[in-house]
Amino acid sequence: MQSSPKPRADAQSTAALESLLGAYQRVRAQTLELAAPLSPEDCVLQSMPDASPVKWHLGHTSWFFETFVLEPGLPRFAPYREAYRVLFNSYYVTVGPRHPRPERGMLSRPSLDEVLAYRSSVDERMHALFARHPEQAARLAELIELGLHHEQQHQELILTDVKHALSRNPLLPAYQRARGHSGRAPETMRWEALPDGVRRIGHDGEGFSFDNERPRHRVFVGHCEVADRLVTNSEYLAFIADGGYRRPQLWLSEGWDQREAQRWEAPLYWIARDGGWSQFTFEGVRALEPDEPVTHVSYYEADAYARWRAARLPTEAEWETVAGGREPAGNFLESGRLHPAAPSAGAASGQFFGDAWEWTSSSYAPYPGFRASEGAVGEYNGKFMVNQYVLRGGSCATPATHIRASYRNFFPAAARWQFSGIRLARDPS
Amino acid sequence: MQSSPKPRADAQSTAALESLLGAYQRVRAQTLELAAPLSPEDCVLQSMPDASPVKWHLGHTSWFFETFVLEPGLPRFAPYREAYRVLFNSYYVTVGPRHPRPERGMLSRPSLDEVLAYRSSVDERMHALFARHPEQAARLAELIELGLHHEQQHQELILTDVKHALSRNPLLPAYQRARGHSGRAPETMRWEALPDGVRRIGHDGEGFSFDNERPRHRVFVGHCEVADRLVTNSEYLAFIADGGYRRPQLWLSEGWDQREAQRWEAPLYWIARDGGWSQFTFEGVRALEPDEPVTHVSYYEADAYARWRAARLPTEAEWETVAGGREPAGNFLESGRLHPAAPSAGAASGQFFGDAWEWTSSSYAPYPGFRASEGAVGEYNGKFMVNQYVLRGGSCATPATHIRASYRNFFPAAARWQFSGIRLARDPS
Amino acid sequence: MQSSPKPRADAQSTAALESLLGAYQRVRAQTLELAAPLSPEDCVLQSMPDASPVKWHLGHTSWFFETFVLEPGLPRFAPYREAYRVLFNSYYVTVGPRHPRPERGMLSRPSLDEVLAYRSSVDERMHALFARHPEQAARLAELIELGLHHEQQHQELILTDVKHALSRNPLLPAYQRARGHSGRAPETMRWEALPDGVRRIGHDGEGFSFDNERPRHRVFVGHCEVADRLVTNSEYLAFIADGGYRRPQLWLSEGWDQREAQRWEAPLYWIARDGGWSQFTFEGVRALEPDEPVTHVSYYEADAYARWRAARLPTEAEWETVAGGREPAGNFLESGRLHPAAPSAGAASGQFFGDAWEWTSSSYAPYPGFRASEGAVGEYNGKFMVNQYVLRGGSCATPATHIRASYRNFFPAAARWQFSGIRLARDPS
Amino acid sequence: MQSSPKPRADAQSTAALESLLGAYQRVRAQTLELAAPLSPEDCVLQSMPDASPVKWHLGHTSWFFETFVLEPGLPRFAPYREAYRVLFNSYYVTVGPRHPRPERGMLSRPSLDEVLAYRSSVDERMHALFARHPEQAARLAELIELGLHHEQQHQELILTDVKHALSRNPLLPAYQRARGHSGRAPETMRWEALPDGVRRIGHDGEGFSFDNERPRHRVFVGHCEVADRLVTNSEYLAFIADGGYRRPQLWLSEGWDQREAQRWEAPLYWIARDGGWSQFTFEGVRALEPDEPVTHVSYYEADAYARWRAARLPTEAEWETVAGGREPAGNFLESGRLHPAAPSAGAASGQFFGDAWEWTSSSYAPYPGFRASEGAVGEYNGKFMVNQYVLRGGSCATPATHIRASYRNFFPAAARWQFSGIRLARDPS
Repeated sequence: MQSSPKPRADAQSTAALESLLGAYQRVRAQTLELAAPLSPEDCVLQSMPDASPVKWHLGHTSWFFETFVLEPGLPRFAPYREAYRVLFNSYYVTVGPRHPRPERGMLSRPSLDEVLAYRSSVDERMHALFARHPEQAARLAELIELGLHHEQQHQELILTDVKHALSRNPLLPAYQRARGHSGRAPETMRWEALPDGVRRIGHDGEGFSFDNERPRHRVFVGHCEVADRLVTNSEYLAFIADGGYRRPQLWLSEGWDQREAQRWEAPLYWIARDGGWSQFTFEGVRALEPDEPVTHVSYYEADAYARWRAARLPTEAEWETVAGGREPAGNFLESGRLHPAAPSAGAASGQFFGDAWEWTSSSYAPYPGFRASEGAVGEYNGKFMVNQYVLRGGSCATPATHIRASYRNFFPAAARWQFSGIRLARDPS
Repeated sequence: MQSSPKPRADAQSTAALESLLGAYQRVRAQTLELAAPLSPEDCVLQSMPDASPVKWHLGHTSWFFETFVLEPGLPRFAPYREAYRVLFNSYYVTVGPRHPRPERGMLSRPSLDEVLAYRSSVDERMHALFARHPEQAARLAELIELGLHHEQQHQELILTDVKHALSRNPLLPAYQRARGHSGRAPETMRWEALPDGVRRIGHDGEGFSFDNERPRHRVFVGHCEVADRLVTNSEYLAFIADGGYRRPQLWLSEGWDQREAQRWEAPLYWIARDGGWSQFTFEGVRALEPDEPVTHVSYYEADAYARWRAARLPTEAEWETVAGGREPAGNFLESGRLHPAAPSAGAASGQFFGDAWEWTSSSYAPYPGFRASEGAVGEYNGKFMVNQYVLRGGSCATPATHIRASYRNFFPAAARWQFSGIRLARDPS
Repeated sequence: MQSSPKPRADAQSTAALESLLGAYQRVRAQTLELAAPLSPEDCVLQSMPDASPVKWHLGHTSWFFETFVLEPGLPRFAPYREAYRVLFNSYYVTVGPRHPRPERGMLSRPSLDEVLAYRSSVDERMHALFARHPEQAARLAELIELGLHHEQQHQELILTDVKHALSRNPLLPAYQRARGHSGRAPETMRWEALPDGVRRIGHDGEGFSFDNERPRHRVFVGHCEVADRLVTNSEYLAFIADGGYRRPQLWLSEGWDQREAQRWEAPLYWIARDGGWSQFTFEGVRALEPDEPVTHVSYYEADAYARWRAARLPTEAEWETVAGGREPAGNFLESGRLHPAAPSAGAASGQFFGDAWEWTSSSYAPYPGFRASEGAVGEYNGKFMVNQYVLRGGSCATPATHIRASYRNFFPAAARWQFSGIRLARDPS
Repeated sequence: MQSSPKPRADAQSTAALESLLGAYQRVRAQTLELAAPLSPEDCVLQSMPDASPVKWHLGHTSWFFETFVLEPGLPRFAPYREAYRVLFNSYYVTVGPRHPRPERGMLSRPSLDEVLAYRSSVDERMHALFARHPEQAARLAELIELGLHHEQQHQELILTDVKHALSRNPLLPAYQRARGHSGRAPETMRWEALPDGVRRIGHDGEGFSFDNERPRHRVFVGHCEVADRLVTNSEYLAFIADGGYRRPQLWLSEGWDQREAQRWEAPLYWIARDGGWSQFTFEGVRALEPDEPVTHVSYYEADAYARWRAARLPTEAEWETVAGGREPAGNFLESGRLHPAAPSAGAASGQFFGDAWEWTSSSYAPYPGFRASEGAVGEYNGKFMVNQYVLRGGSCATPATHIRASYRNFFPAAARWQFSGIRLARDPS
């Protein structure tokens, strides 16, 4: 994580600072908007160790700016509350002690109001930094930008974590009112052929990127074919109907063990009801939409589904090669609203960005020549590079300005609470 | 649990009903008072499977009246919310399905306000029952009385559970403002001799009792001596200083295993600080009060301490024989305030009631001739009669009107989050 | 555990020593006889932490004599192997460190032959003690006697532990050849009335007893009725057929949780086959014998069964009062063979001894005035007096000379691998 | 796994069959040789779910030939014992049910003698196949060859599993007598530069290979440097001395969690004694040999060590590119003895084969175009391709004829009971 490696002289100009401040205001406001439909009680829940309370996300994203920007940037800096430095530190051992992650659900105090006050204080001091110490703001521009991308990651986690927490409530409450759904039937899946050759993947240096997307480097990609859209719910239903969850031959051995231990019979949030399937969504329970991309599947399920289709998951190099030409427009300095809804059904050809995180077959590993960022923010990515799989593309819960072709998301193979879906690839026969 | 077995003609009189209604109002109001210092976020926490969120206690105690009184008593009864019948059922399998206990901490909805509205609805309908269907109220008087005692049990659990939840917060927040403490030094422990003979224990039929206190029956109690007060913090400190937590010879084998697994070094809520001991209390952290009775010890610790003193814990028959003559005055129809504080230091001779629950060496078992109450409320006590130990006397968190000599509380030997303390007994040498 | 408290002048006479030596030889030989049908590989298995490998039992019983008799009794004692002092110490913390119990199954070395050589060495030195140091043998006579009773306990454990280990093998191998079974139909269950009154229970001082059987003391026993025989397999089948394992109302709450977690559907070792029930026994799998007493049930199952019969389990005082008059003849100084088979079907009225250990409703606790034996052997019993239930009577796997009316066996409520059965009691209606 | 893809006309000739039979005899004899120093009791131990009893390895390798060669190859095939088809099936769900892996340690029966008789029966029938049905032997030649490589894998597991089992015994028994150790000091670590370019890795089709080594394919390897020898014990000691096990900054996050949970302070089998380090080996405990390669480290430790050295682990492509030119001579049809000892100290430049399995940073994944073998043996490799890391080179416990440059071993990142060591790589600065 961290910004582009070359000097950003422009960011030091007034215009650049103003633009950055505008981005700061928009991103911070959007986080509050996401929390708005929730009660203080919703915001304190931690439904599993992998997830965090919304209140904690609100505090932690503020802590990030306080720790990495305000503390080095403000002349007479004092922390808002000494205790928050521990409470809201996620995993930065270099920075100091941390409240244990599985204990975050015990934090009834500070109250939501107190955390919001903390946010306001950080915002005020950030404004002061921009207004009174522009040279410091310019010096720390990259860390500010990093903080905004960091906050966007937590925006998505707020949504996925609260969805998981609400799903644990037998009342199955909705996060928001129901909206119309497109329901357009997807076209037949087509395969895009990729000729073999040495490709370049990784971030090219324009605009923001995390350290794990760098350096851009060469990789040999063999001849293969990649599907032009995601697997839909109805296609996945055929897998279930064909005994997909009953046939160990289709599964990785470890995946089968998980399936048995967790008693998986369908994607997470699917509910068998009255002979059909419903789905728990941000809008409560509704009938399963057959044309939407299947989401909330683990790597194991994605892999088993692909095997059943006599296909496989793409590698991240294949994915980036195919998706690279379709780079989504926009970046967060401009606009980008977040409508946490369902992934779009029947998306136009491509559907590479903004519907579901797509499991790749690539284990999360450092790129050749990878160097973690300097200082505490160097803990951002590198130390998680083991036993996780890369997901690409961005989901319907990802802020639009946070999406780019070189982005590497990563989760353990058993994770299902993200909007994770399936794109197929195959070798030419 | 359930009221006295003989007919209660008087309860059918208007005066008796008025008195019962008054009691209902007092007890219900007191529950709200206990929750008053807490935020909605405090009220949603479940810090361990043994404990429940305050909000759940508020709902469950209302559910009890709705299910066992309003439903059979009101002509055109309809449940307030169908879903609450499952959400707020604790363990009554006869009544229907239950929300799993360890999941109670996931209930951000219904909100605290909604649960309070539920309480109000129950209260209104209870008033309607008394006002418009007095004959039904009279018929159900015993169940109403049971419901009040049930609610008092949950009043105590509200306090012990919220104390536990707050203790998990690194901010160690206080439940209430600090009050003065007596600090009077206790007198030397004296031993009251009990000659052998056949005694009668169990409830004698006057006033309310739970089914597990009945029937009153004969038991042979051998010659023994019982201490006239509880063990104090300073006395317990001497045990620690003498290596009490390092010497397996002093412990039950299973207790030692627990001690090692849980890394117990002192009672729950004791905090080693600056070379001394502090204690987490309802008032936050304060210095350990040497003269207060030691509390928050497990059965294993109580037993080890007694062995170290060349003594033992009393049986419940010994306890009741000695305490019986000191029966506390008052019953809940009259008054009884609840000051959740610390147990009293240096109590006058006796100290049998209202300071700490006193571990006895008696496994929780049915009295000879025990019969569980009829119907669903028969699940109240009997099905828990295995692998638990009886505690007697009532603690500083027990409503005063809830305390009586025949009362049998019970917890597993490892439980420490109750105000559980130690009274010694010994055999004549 | 330990012998009678009064002086045993006779044991010091030559005749008494000869008698003791004879007993020693018989008991030690019998242990080897029990291990004879087993291969070295059988003897190394540990199928669960509660059980121990046969080889370990062989070593530990020898360690007991070496540690508590030879070391204090032989002038120039040296341990056979220094390492065995740790390996074969069970739980005597006073004696020194112990190899962790769940690790006993890792002891491929010492080999079975080496352990048998260790036994021989202990036997030779015991003979030397009797022959050359009779005054020491006389001084230690009580510990020798204790060692023999200790070894008899382990004889039973050898059988129950190896049965459990063999049951884990899908080949379900037999420990011994099939023998004929009596198959006599039991008579109708009759109830023996017990009038109320103060009774005396506990060991009366004649012959050997463990410390936990003492002191003999008074206890009040109310009017009740006790069944004159054990519950049979066919009677238990009726409970299963009536949904006994499906109705939580019949169970203790904790028992039901166990049932669900362990998926109990029948007693341990019962196998549903071809529409009927078979049973794994020392003779391999055979059809369930309807007239034999049901065995291998937990306390929870025994309790649920009794509740289903509108009865209850007897207390240990009730049991001893009824069984006391039927005291079995014989003691180990005389004879007593051990035929590990099945419990007898259709036993004559009584059936109190030698068929199945009978669960009582009494939690295992010290008798009033209990004092643990002096020294390390004081760890024998007392430190296990929590969360266990007393079983009485002795099973078909108990050496006949080891059985007596005051004997208190004890196991946790979930234990099923002992020959534990059910006797009913009830209160007069 | 499975042999070379092109037709093997020569294998059908008499000479080829004779050669194959000779190989069969040598490999099978070597397995028995490895078990020779062990007692029946040693052979029944299972010290953890990851390991298997030696007896099971002996049975399973025979089951492999019986199932995949004798059954399809012998005219009137009947299984040796029906029960063995389940007992000795490891993980081939296509073949039928399997005895659960963690239960293998409960198999006292069949006895070691019975398993050896099973082996003899398989060997006799294999000879009969070669002698009387050479056309069948020729048809199944590839599966026979596969069976031999499969057996060689289990030869190594016999050694690593028995080492682990013996290490759990406090007597720390030796597997074999002590031998001399070379003790030659290693030379300074040198770095071999690898220029960037497209490389080919994977098996080239000459001789045997497993399916996971195929197909040979192109991969881009960037400019890097690879160490010319393994990290030694003394070099690893410097890491420990520098607080390597105390500094979370050096570790992957998940590795640090493991380190804390497992309390790792040094490689497996290292024993802190008298102020220095000893090591449990096949020869019992001996002083740590400073010049030997460090072994028995997890992926996490290897990674942390590399980070401490400002280096990294090589990818498998880098490894194979560097090691490819140093391909070890010999194949199992010729000779190859197995001396389970320690890895060689101070090996000549290279040390790529036969000292320690070398962790690579590559997650175990299918090669582009990978196709699992047809039939049940297709379960051999592919289904394990998740959350494991590739190790290369072969250890001192690997049969010499089993080693080749394209061989891909794989274990979870936490595995330490294999002879796993560390080779460093680095990016040019």
